[in-house]
Amino acid sequence: MTEPGPAPSGPIPASTVVIGTGLIGTSVALALRARGARVWLADSDDDALRLAVSLGAGQPLPPGGVPGGPAEVAVLAMPPAAVAAELRAAQGRRLARCYTDVASVKELPLAAARELGCDLASYVPGHPLSGRERSGPAAARADLFSGRPWVLCPQAANADDDVRLVTGLAAACGAVPLLVPAAEHDQWVALVSHAPHAVAAAMAARLENAPALALALAGQGLRDVTRIAGSGTGMWLQILAANAGPAGEVLRLVAADLILAADALDSLAAGDEAAVKQVEDLLARGSAGVGRIPGKHGGPTSEFSPVQVVIPDRPGELARLLAAAGEAGVNVEDITIEHSPGLPVGVAELWARPESAPALASALAAAGWPVAGPAAGSIAS
Amino acid sequence: MTEPGPAPSGPIPASTVVIGTGLIGTSVALALRARGARVWLADSDDDALRLAVSLGAGQPLPPGGVPGGPAEVAVLAMPPAAVAAELRAAQGRRLARCYTDVASVKELPLAAARELGCDLASYVPGHPLSGRERSGPAAARADLFSGRPWVLCPQAANADDDVRLVTGLAAACGAVPLLVPAAEHDQWVALVSHAPHAVAAAMAARLENAPALALALAGQGLRDVTRIAGSGTGMWLQILAANAGPAGEVLRLVAADLILAADALDSLAAGDEAAVKQVEDLLARGSAGVGRIPGKHGGPTSEFSPVQVVIPDRPGELARLLAAAGEAGVNVEDITIEHSPGLPVGVAELWARPESAPALASALAAAGWPVAGPAAGSIAS
Repeated sequence: MTEPGPAPSGPIPASTVVIGTGLIGTSVALALRARGARVWLADSDDDALRLAVSLGAGQPLPPGGVPGGPAEVAVLAMPPAAVAAELRAAQGRRLARCYTDVASVKELPLAAARELGCDLASYVPGHPLSGRERSGPAAARADLFSGRPWVLCPQAANADDDVRLVTGLAAACGAVPLLVPAAEHDQWVALVSHAPHAVAAAMAARLENAPALALALAGQGLRDVTRIAGSGTGMWLQILAANAGPAGEVLRLVAADLILAADALDSLAAGDEAAVKQVEDLLARGSAGVGRIPGKHGGPTSEFSPVQVVIPDRPGELARLLAAAGEAGVNVEDITIEHSPGLPVGVAELWARPESAPALASALAAAGWPVAGPAAGSIAS
Repeated sequence: MTEPGPAPSGPIPASTVVIGTGLIGTSVALALRARGARVWLADSDDDALRLAVSLGAGQPLPPGGVPGGPAEVAVLAMPPAAVAAELRAAQGRRLARCYTDVASVKELPLAAARELGCDLASYVPGHPLSGRERSGPAAARADLFSGRPWVLCPQAANADDDVRLVTGLAAACGAVPLLVPAAEHDQWVALVSHAPHAVAAAMAARLENAPALALALAGQGLRDVTRIAGSGTGMWLQILAANAGPAGEVLRLVAADLILAADALDSLAAGDEAAVKQVEDLLARGSAGVGRIPGKHGGPTSEFSPVQVVIPDRPGELARLLAAAGEAGVNVEDITIEHSPGLPVGVAELWARPESAPALASALAAAGWPVAGPAAGSIAS
């Protein structure tokens, strides 16, 4: 294959089978249904299947297979270790013209499919980089993949038309299809997803037996660093085990930096002021690393500017405030509210495009709203 | 001193000097002013002082000291390494009856104050566990300390009345005063604040030279784990250096767990399936640790239930939605909005008290709003 990068997308598959109606499978099905495509659903869990069908994600796949012949694509939406066996079964039933999966690692299902004697020519491995902390079909959303990358790892044996079908499926879900070799994919997700999960767990593990009063001192920083370690341990164990080599490599490098920092801090505590350079270096590299992460999703970003307004904490005030913003003709892109326990007011931050924020602030002030203090400086994101 | 725990609070100090009008000092001053107390302000940075005064945080401290004699309390609001010298200067000027500070570590300023020959009897070390990512007086808020812990580390030499004055100051700021020995304080903040910062930096440092396309695969998890490493490196270097011993100890333990996990992953990659137990153990301990952190601050919490509504992405729609919520008589505690790039709609989550959420959902549905899907399951926080 060529250099990693964006893929030209094909047409929307007219018919798709989705096997596995969890969060990802059901969201794929909903996205395809929203584009008018036909979708058949299967899941060994009857309740999950029934819920997905009732959400409008598609029709149950009849025991005899897709009526009128194979679907264009079958999507295998299950954990990495289960993909190959399902692929073999689906290929045996001739459910579709080509097959893709959505598992978080790509080398393992490919190797297992090879071992099980699957038809590799009709299997285009894939991984949509979407998810949420809730799981199951009830959490599914047609827009789960909107604007998110969807990695595809075409193999030499794949026909171009099959690759186009699967990129068409990813694009139909609103995602950005990217072609990436399987080995690079696995290293990259180890770096940006799997290792961070284990790092969060290792930090959080230190809290397990900490004094309750120590935990009462925790702030938002600790919550953010450890949050992802709080859920989905079963799923993450499968993912880490399936990507053991690349994930282990990143963890070893993180540990090495922490040991260097610990050594430097010990030297500092012993009076060696020069050791501060090593701690400074770690913080500087960390800050540079954070700066390289592309803009946030799902919250206020540096694209938007905040206007702070003090509002009484009672029904209807937020509506009055937003009505005033609407009259100013400014689109409020997001809202954050700072709770003020024990105070009868809160501070609402209305996030608007930078060019609109001053007009919004003026319009709200003119309408009698207490727009807070001077303009805030740069917003750390 | 007695066991660590909550402190009975004294009266609000009638007069306070705040030295250092950054985020914390100005917020203390604003909180005291809101309670009607007299506040004098000082800062070596004239701009910061002028801004704090213009925010209503108090009057500039005259060169001759507090008019009419010493204030009841002087608050030293500066980095840990600067506290002792300022304490000595303030005591030399007899600015106040007793002194406290707000630095993030407590052993270092105490030791330095002892070394400089300060009067330890009138110094009650303190640390309000509050902060935000913005700094400086413009980011100050009278409610910055609301409901947050404020650690005080009274010394054997302190008079009870002085300790009561400082707890009164903390309580007047809306904080919860806690008495904690200085050594425990430093170990606890190393665990819940300082080490997490270095861990976030060590994870983020791995991104510094990563391929851009790898970073394009990043999701919210990586952003959360690394976020705090993105700002304030200068301040955090000072904090880590000032708490080097305890912070280094935590980092070494985190590193040890990461190396165990990396070894287990290597064994797994080499085919030793039994090694999965060690990874499972880390994830389980991490999840247990996250579960011990008390409820979130500053965002939707498990106290509130979400009602999901699909809304068009144009001016005024959010106002119409909140007007409908207001008509239902339900107080919306918070709002989160999920952006859907490329889609003409977004999903607003209105967070209400659990007992109010069903009524809110019904009222919005009756008003013609598309309230999304079935009731969401449990919300991972």
